[in-house]
Amino acid sequence: MKSCDVLVLGASAAGIAAGNAVKAYHPEKSVMLFRNVEKTVVPCGIPYVYGELKDVEKDIIPDGHATGSGAELFTDEAVDGDLKEKVIKFASGEEVKYDKLILSVGSHPFVPPLPGRDLKNVFTVKKDVKVMQEIFDAVNKAKNIVVIGGGFIGVEMGEQFNKIPGKNVTIVEMLPHCLLLAMEEEFAVMAENKLKDAGINVLTNASAKAINGTDTVESVELASGEKIPADMVLIGIGAAANVDLAKNLGLEVDMKMGIQVDKFMQTSDPDVLAAGDCAAKVSFITGKPAPVRLASIASEEGFMAGYNTYASDKIAMKGAVGAFGTKIGDRVFAAAGFTTGMCKMNDVEYYEGNFVGPDRHPAAFDDVTMDTKVKVIFRKSDDKLIGGDATGNLQAVEMANVISACIQAGYTVKDLATTQFATHPKLTGSPLGYHICQAAENALRNR
Amino acid sequence: MKSCDVLVLGASAAGIAAGNAVKAYHPEKSVMLFRNVEKTVVPCGIPYVYGELKDVEKDIIPDGHATGSGAELFTDEAVDGDLKEKVIKFASGEEVKYDKLILSVGSHPFVPPLPGRDLKNVFTVKKDVKVMQEIFDAVNKAKNIVVIGGGFIGVEMGEQFNKIPGKNVTIVEMLPHCLLLAMEEEFAVMAENKLKDAGINVLTNASAKAINGTDTVESVELASGEKIPADMVLIGIGAAANVDLAKNLGLEVDMKMGIQVDKFMQTSDPDVLAAGDCAAKVSFITGKPAPVRLASIASEEGFMAGYNTYASDKIAMKGAVGAFGTKIGDRVFAAAGFTTGMCKMNDVEYYEGNFVGPDRHPAAFDDVTMDTKVKVIFRKSDDKLIGGDATGNLQAVEMANVISACIQAGYTVKDLATTQFATHPKLTGSPLGYHICQAAENALRNR
Repeated sequence: MKSCDVLVLGASAAGIAAGNAVKAYHPEKSVMLFRNVEKTVVPCGIPYVYGELKDVEKDIIPDGHATGSGAELFTDEAVDGDLKEKVIKFASGEEVKYDKLILSVGSHPFVPPLPGRDLKNVFTVKKDVKVMQEIFDAVNKAKNIVVIGGGFIGVEMGEQFNKIPGKNVTIVEMLPHCLLLAMEEEFAVMAENKLKDAGINVLTNASAKAINGTDTVESVELASGEKIPADMVLIGIGAAANVDLAKNLGLEVDMKMGIQVDKFMQTSDPDVLAAGDCAAKVSFITGKPAPVRLASIASEEGFMAGYNTYASDKIAMKGAVGAFGTKIGDRVFAAAGFTTGMCKMNDVEYYEGNFVGPDRHPAAFDDVTMDTKVKVIFRKSDDKLIGGDATGNLQAVEMANVISACIQAGYTVKDLATTQFATHPKLTGSPLGYHICQAAENALRNR
Repeated sequence: MKSCDVLVLGASAAGIAAGNAVKAYHPEKSVMLFRNVEKTVVPCGIPYVYGELKDVEKDIIPDGHATGSGAELFTDEAVDGDLKEKVIKFASGEEVKYDKLILSVGSHPFVPPLPGRDLKNVFTVKKDVKVMQEIFDAVNKAKNIVVIGGGFIGVEMGEQFNKIPGKNVTIVEMLPHCLLLAMEEEFAVMAENKLKDAGINVLTNASAKAINGTDTVESVELASGEKIPADMVLIGIGAAANVDLAKNLGLEVDMKMGIQVDKFMQTSDPDVLAAGDCAAKVSFITGKPAPVRLASIASEEGFMAGYNTYASDKIAMKGAVGAFGTKIGDRVFAAAGFTTGMCKMNDVEYYEGNFVGPDRHPAAFDDVTMDTKVKVIFRKSDDKLIGGDATGNLQAVEMANVISACIQAGYTVKDLATTQFATHPKLTGSPLGYHICQAAENALRNR
């Protein structure tokens, strides 16, 4: 029987980060990583395989990222185990004994109970090169492509499919706008218009009722009765935590939210930690369960799980913030924390500030993005920053990261309005027109 | 005699911000702004007038930025006054009575006692359209241009002069590298190499001993004896606070550092505030006097001074951090807080972490800046973030802004290593290779 100090199940963002953290901070400990796929894909890179990278093999995380630290990497699927004996059993029959176990087994695409979902050329987005290649082959043959779901994954997949000449791409979204769960409505509308400008057929307030066809998909039928011709369908409406193994092992599990962990990423078993999409999360803003699943959170949780295995000074997760960025056409859209919509859903009273201006100064420079926009959102009860959005040029993603860091730092509206930031003619708005400060100053006036 | 509630002297970054803040938060108060120039230039935009904007008039802050809030704007120079009578006298003979006075009278270029500094075609960088135009006329006629001083202003002016065809540009810097007071040595070397790649003659460890010529400048003589031919010389070695008026009015002044203010920007007179380059500053990191002068600090101080005039909940300045960004050639260099050099000068024990990687992921994308680099610096005594540098594509400036905000938030190395940031294939390094977190993780290992 093999044995190691730390056994990590899953070798995507959380698992690799966890293994590397064990080797970085407890270098005397041995680490084994097991994954159930031959190669680890870059999860957020999947859409870009189709329109820009044009090759599934270009979206692989090199194994050296996992093994460079000294961790060993194996391909096998964990199927069972015994937490008292501290043993995990694999599909191959192999058994591995551990001292600490880290579960980073990820999530799987949520598939709605749509009639016809098993037809040929109907796909979900799996982090698996084989499935990614099947999608690529189907896309290449398809003329009419329907994407069900207008969140980040649906929008990015749709945009990339549409970059391939000769494709008619339709995105079907239930809500009034695409991306509405991730960003403010006016930002979502700008993003949606970029999709439409590119020639994508965006159907909002629209839900799929059935996928029609005999053997292969032929159309998607909407609740309205409308039928959209489809040679291929991609369903991208969210992901669910992989909890079956944890449940079988006897760990405390919330079937909907994931494996239960404390703030140090420890499960109900003192020698088992969990991190990433498979682990339940609480919101940084409300302290309540939060269904957010992001590679950027997974990698931080993995880091903490790995660090905490043998640390006397454990690091605590402060809660999931949710920070996103994407690029649609030539424009960046990014957000962190709560939207005003989430405030309403969670009964959080808020006030906001906005600022629109050029991303360089003076505005006489060439290539200025004049309508670079930032919104910041504060909680009325304590004036703390709880969310924000940025859209514009490349810098917008890091503006959202400034907002994300300031949320996590517990910044108040006065703190944010008076933060000192680097400004430069060729790089940012002016000192008098730096978007984040100006938006906060406006919020201070609006409260 | 004119009178107003708030009289603001100086209408650049600090003055405009101050006037706007009074009108925003105390809208019933009247505001008068006086400047001693006909137009307000964008101070950090001055270098770009020469190579890219090609027109002094494109580097003007529109007066509407100052008057849009309801403040009145005048051109006149304050020459004297009486703080007991609360009156300021102007060069025109006009007198204005105030309730609150805000001094935002800026700084002037420091001119070293160099023989020949009064020769024709020897300039300093003044925030004055007339001087800017004189420099433009001289540049257009010059073949050999020497810039004395390789800090931000010297480097940016030199780079822009060099963009005009047919100019031989030399930068003379006393220290071993350009920009060494603002950023880490390895970043400064990269920046310096960009200048050399563009064909600029960069002389380091070199100091000017004299400027030679009869009526007009002919050469710059170095301490080594070498003579550099020069049809034009620009001296850019720093700025000194304008304190004469404040001293004459009887305010407490440090002749070297500026007008003395408390953390609420109040001077030694309870009804007089000061903000921007003319006001003395203390370092956020050490609490000691700091000679940093930046438009981005000026605008924050101006905002606070304006807000605090009539506020019961005054906002306190937490100290100057110093956050910079610039672009040299196609590359961005940015920094915030202390460098390791400043740590040594101030006897601050520190440790650091570095990370180099692509600015997008997977690295198979086109146009990836593979050597995007971040350094973060922590104080040994309390593990707090006290400085950092970023270089790469456009995002690098906002990475420095993330670092700046985290310094001001009092982040520790563990906080920074586990901060959640937005990552995206087309916009940032991967979740496992996001520079700021990775650099902090490496610092955590190095301490």
